[in-house]
Formats: sequence, C-alpha cells, structure tokens
Amino acid sequence: MIFLDNASTTPMSKSAIENLVKYSTENFFNPSAIYGAGYQNFKDIESTKKLLCQKLFVPFKNNIIFTGSATEATNLAILGSFKPSFKKMVFSVGEHPSVYNTALSLKSKGVNVEFVNLQKNGEVDYVELEKMLDSSVNFISIMQVSNETGAINDIAKICQLKKQYCPNAILHCDGVQAFGKIETNLAKLDLDFYTISAHKLHGPKGLGALYAKNPNKLQPIIFGGGQEYNLRSGTENLASIMAFKTALEEIDIQKNFEKICALNKTFKANLIAKTNSKITLKFVENQNLSPYILSVSIPKIKGETLVYMCDSKGLLVSTGSACSAKKSGNRILENLGYDKTLIEGNIRVSFSNFSTLEDIENGSKILANCINELFEKTT
Amino acid sequence: MIFLDNASTTPMSKSAIENLVKYSTENFFNPSAIYGAGYQNFKDIESTKKLLCQKLFVPFKNNIIFTGSATEATNLAILGSFKPSFKKMVFSVGEHPSVYNTALSLKSKGVNVEFVNLQKNGEVDYVELEKMLDSSVNFISIMQVSNETGAINDIAKICQLKKQYCPNAILHCDGVQAFGKIETNLAKLDLDFYTISAHKLHGPKGLGALYAKNPNKLQPIIFGGGQEYNLRSGTENLASIMAFKTALEEIDIQKNFEKICALNKTFKANLIAKTNSKITLKFVENQNLSPYILSVSIPKIKGETLVYMCDSKGLLVSTGSACSAKKSGNRILENLGYDKTLIEGNIRVSFSNFSTLEDIENGSKILANCINELFEKTT
Repeated sequence: MIFLDNASTTPMSKSAIENLVKYSTENFFNPSAIYGAGYQNFKDIESTKKLLCQKLFVPFKNNIIFTGSATEATNLAILGSFKPSFKKMVFSVGEHPSVYNTALSLKSKGVNVEFVNLQKNGEVDYVELEKMLDSSVNFISIMQVSNETGAINDIAKICQLKKQYCPNAILHCDGVQAFGKIETNLAKLDLDFYTISAHKLHGPKGLGALYAKNPNKLQPIIFGGGQEYNLRSGTENLASIMAFKTALEEIDIQKNFEKICALNKTFKANLIAKTNSKITLKFVENQNLSPYILSVSIPKIKGETLVYMCDSKGLLVSTGSACSAKKSGNRILENLGYDKTLIEGNIRVSFSNFSTLEDIENGSKILANCINELFEKTT
Repeated sequence: MIFLDNASTTPMSKSAIENLVKYSTENFFNPSAIYGAGYQNFKDIESTKKLLCQKLFVPFKNNIIFTGSATEATNLAILGSFKPSFKKMVFSVGEHPSVYNTALSLKSKGVNVEFVNLQKNGEVDYVELEKMLDSSVNFISIMQVSNETGAINDIAKICQLKKQYCPNAILHCDGVQAFGKIETNLAKLDLDFYTISAHKLHGPKGLGALYAKNPNKLQPIIFGGGQEYNLRSGTENLASIMAFKTALEEIDIQKNFEKICALNKTFKANLIAKTNSKITLKFVENQNLSPYILSVSIPKIKGETLVYMCDSKGLLVSTGSACSAKKSGNRILENLGYDKTLIEGNIRVSFSNFSTLEDIENGSKILANCINELFEKTT
C-alpha cells in the first residue's frame, strides 16, 4: 500500500512509539502527583515544551499549552481570547474547519465576523485584507499553509498589516500543515497564537499544542483540575506528549524540505507525462506552494471515484482534507474560482519525510492509470 | 516501587499497549478518510463504542462521544447542554474539579447554580437534595464514586428524586471512578449523560468518553471537522480508543471487585495493627465505599510530608486527588466535617486490579512505619 495522504495523518515513527510505550507503562505516573515520579513526568512534559519553543525560535515561558487536538488548540485561541466587547473578527475563507466553523459559531451568535477571500493562487487576498483591517478589528486568524491547496500565506506580511491597521488585535495562525515542515521563526513574526498538531509529524493523534505569546490573554474553554497553567484542565496526555518530543527531535526541516520538493516535482512530472494527453490536469497556480501537498483537479472525473479506484490499486490519496472528505462541495476551491467539474474532480496527494522515491514513482503511475481508465469510461 | 495511587492514573495493560502500537503504526489511517483502510478504522472505533455500551447495558445508538479527557467529557455534558434559559442547576459539593469548576464558571456568569452538601459518610445529602429540587431545576450533576473518599452515591435514588421533582431536568453522572469498577446498569438508571475515563482503567491518558442518552440534546463545545456526530471535532484519537477497547475487554468487574475488597480490607487491617496505638486513624465512616479508594486521616501529621516520606521508602500514595494535590485546603473533607488537622493529615490509598497482595502487605507496612516515625518526631 502506497500512502500519499500524509496531510490527513501520518504513521508514528519507531522511536516515537518507544516513548509512547515507555510513558504508558513504566513511566506512567500522573504529572500532577506530588511524589518524585510524578514531578519527573511534569518536568519531562516541560522538556517537550522547551523543544517546541526551540523549534519556533522563541524562549520557553510557560507559553505552550497542550490540548487534545489541534482543533481544540485553534478553538482555545479563538474562543479563549474572545470577549463580548469584540467589534470585528477577521478570518480567511480558506481556514481549516476547526477555525472556520468556530468563526461561524461566533457569527451565529451575532458576533461581527468577516471573511477575507483567497486569490487564485490559493493565498489570502492581501489587498482585500488590507481594506478589511481597521482599528475596530480585535481578532484575526489566518492559516500558514492551506491543508487543501498547500498555498503558503505570507504571515510576515499579515503581521505587518495588522501592526499598521489594528496593532491591538490578536493574531492567531494555524500552523498545522506548516510546523516542522516549513521553517517558521516566531521571533520574527508578531503572532499571539500559533497552533500545532502532533499527528501530522509522525507523532500521536489526540495531541495538539497552542503557542501563546502571552497566555494571560487567554481564558480556559475547558474547566477542571487546573492543568496547563489553568488553561486546559484534564490529566496531561503524558505518553503522547513524550512521543511527540521524539518525533520532533527526528525532524530536520531543511533536509526534509529539499527531499519533499524533489519528490513533489517528480510526482507531478510523472503524472503529467503518464496521463492521457487529452486530459488537462489543473494544478494550483502558485510558485510558492508547500511541497508536502499537491492538489490536482481532473475535469469530468469524480475525485471520490478516483480515490476509491486508487485505493483498490494500492494507492491512498484523498479528496480534499479528511475533515471535509465526507462533506459536499468545497468552499476553498470554489473561492479560488474552480468550476463545478474541477471541484468535483479534485484530489489531494500529500507527502511526508517517510515517503520514498519508489512510492512516488509507483504512486504517480497508479494515479495516472486510474485517471486514464476513468477518462476512457466517461468519454 | 509500590504504586497505590491508582485513582490518579494507572499503567497501561500489555495488550492495550499492543493495540496502541498497532493503530499508531500499521493501522494508523485517518478514520475520516473515505478509502477502505480509513473506513475500517472508523468501524473499529465504533466497535469500542459498542463495547462501552455493552458494559453499560444499553444499546449502541451513536450515543458515545470520545473526547480528549474525562474532563472534556464532563465539560461537554454541562456546557454542551447548557441553555441561557436555565433557571437552576444543581451540583454536589463533592464533585471532581472538572464538574465543580465548570459549575463555578457558569455561576460566575450569573447562572443560578446551587450546591448540595455531603453527609458525614461522604455521600450526597439526599434530604437536602430533595429540598433543593423543584420544577425550576434544569440540570443536575452528581458523581457516582467520590475520587477523594470513595463514597458511592445512590444514583438510583437521585434518578428517582429527579423524576419526582423535575422530570425534565438533565441528569449527568461523573462515572470516572466507578465505570469498570462498580457494576453500573444504565438501562436501569435514567441518566442523560455519563462520563468515562480511559486512563483510570489501564487504558491511555488523553481519552474520555461521554455516554449521551440523547445526543441531540447536546451542542458542541469544540468546533471543526464534524467528527463524533458533529459533537466533538478533531481527528479521532484512533490508537488510544483501540487501546482502551483492549483494556476494557480485560476487565472482569465482579471478580476484580471481590479481589479489591479483600485487598482494601487487608490494607486497612494491617495499617491499624501496625500503627502506633496512640494514633487514632480516621477513616470515612460508610459501609458502602468503593473498595478501590481508601481515604485515611492521621491527626497532627501533614499528609504532604507523609506522601514524600512514603515516596522515599518506595510507596506511592497521594494527598487527595492528583487534581487537587497542588491546591490548598480540601472542600470535600471540609464538607464532611473534618477539622483542620484531619484535612491536613489526609492521604488517599487507591488500588487497581494490578495491585497484588504483596503490594498491600509491604505498602501498609511502609505507610504505618512512616506514620509512626512522623508521630515520634512531632510529639
């Protein structure tokens, strides 16, 4: 089985598994317990937080809050900093459902929520954003890398616009598809919150993290025993946190980036070469995409059917994100100006540093064959 | 090291670990993915939900919602069913912080929240509760087994009182210290919500579950991709859910209950026998306590000091719950009428089906020796 749906989730690395097992068995003690073995686990959790901060180029100041998922982390950033006095909140149309649906939930309660559109290249429309920003804006959430298209938003530019038009606004960035993949230096970006997911990086599912420049700006959205600086109660997910640490330690962002760029390029070239020349494959038109995600639309072919056919031939890819896979339509591709047939015919191929050249060569062949076969049937 | 702090957390069982590893590596696929391997994982998660329902003696009707912790599950039950139109919400003073602090949070927002006191035996004061209940009550949350004292509340009686005085009220029960330990037949109890924790039963940390008689009565508190019937978004914590399944399968409630009753009895008898006869150990006065928890107070000795001393001699026990271990005071013991010295001198010894007679014999000896040593020093 060739797995090229790494933007949805990834298998855990062997050494991450070792820590997962170690901290679930011999080192399982509750990190809130006052005896030595408990306190040691508390300190071990802190060491993971320190590593996260190091990877983000910021000092550790009790500013990492572990959550039960990246979705919970984005919810904490948005709902945990929301105040009824907020006059305007700005989100991009391209946000992951964890941000987009949280924004919609606030909007349904009467909060003034505005959405900035995307450009054809998948990035936020910076001109529209600039028009939207003024001193009434209290909160902005714009993702770093689109989970659907791989488009990389210019977060530095967004920070600069925020500083210019609404310096007091809170700025959250969903870094789920970027962290550990695209070098991100938070010391150079004026972000208030940054969301991280463990399972996209060969860590465990069920673990997210929120970096908070100033945790005092947050209120908890889950109440209880007061763990995580009283911002996220619930027994710490010790084993997953320690497994994530190991997964993180293994990541060489720059080396992986170069490797994935090459794999992505090869996959795309192979796919184009092997696909029936009568078919015009539609790729996102942007020179600065994350190499980890390759979004392609095939006119007149249903992406869903293509995914099932690839599955039967040993290749796993997806229609858009797993989170929206079961939903109809695709607001993001619609916003990019894709017509109905390009939206229906969209699939996402996504890579990880576990992907091999063999996966890419065989995977692109299977995909092209399936496209050709479906094309023959439908024409 | 003798571990008798099982009410705070437990080590994972060997076979639970096997599933944890399997579903983190070869079977890691996103349960929301539409291809076969993803869908299979979705069905596998459902099989865990079916097992949970079976253990609760209710049919599976998409009525189990997995969360990132039991704390999140209680929060979902309370905040997810809360409506601004609520006239009165009733909680017991003895609730775990995940319920108690959520109640306080609502109270701080002006919601009419009332707390029913405990009897000296640790159970809810049913007479006071009866007086508190009337048709204006919209929500009640009372735990099944106290995490501090082991007192078992009469949930059937509480259901009956609810039916009599406020039949339309929503009734939540925190079953964290009861599920898998004390036979609980939800078919015979008219509960709307029941909260479960995995890591108290040799399953993984970072996983809770909420049973909902009618999930339609809930609104999500975390928004996103729509997982868990749109009630708890975030990629499903597949490996932990499957590990919990195995942990559950291994549990023989009745057999374990009898074993733990015997161990608890032996521990208590040994402790009394070996403790300096000048010391009057104070136990919770109730014939119907959970055998998994033994709460004992030693006058004039600081529980915290005792925990550290036991730790240094190879025994791990706790002062109250891990969640409140770092807090001062103890609202539950105060409510039971304990004086300051009994509250300060309280420790909790807690067992699991992994506890052995050897643990109990050596553990009770260490505890008695530490008590005697501290007593000599302080008098």
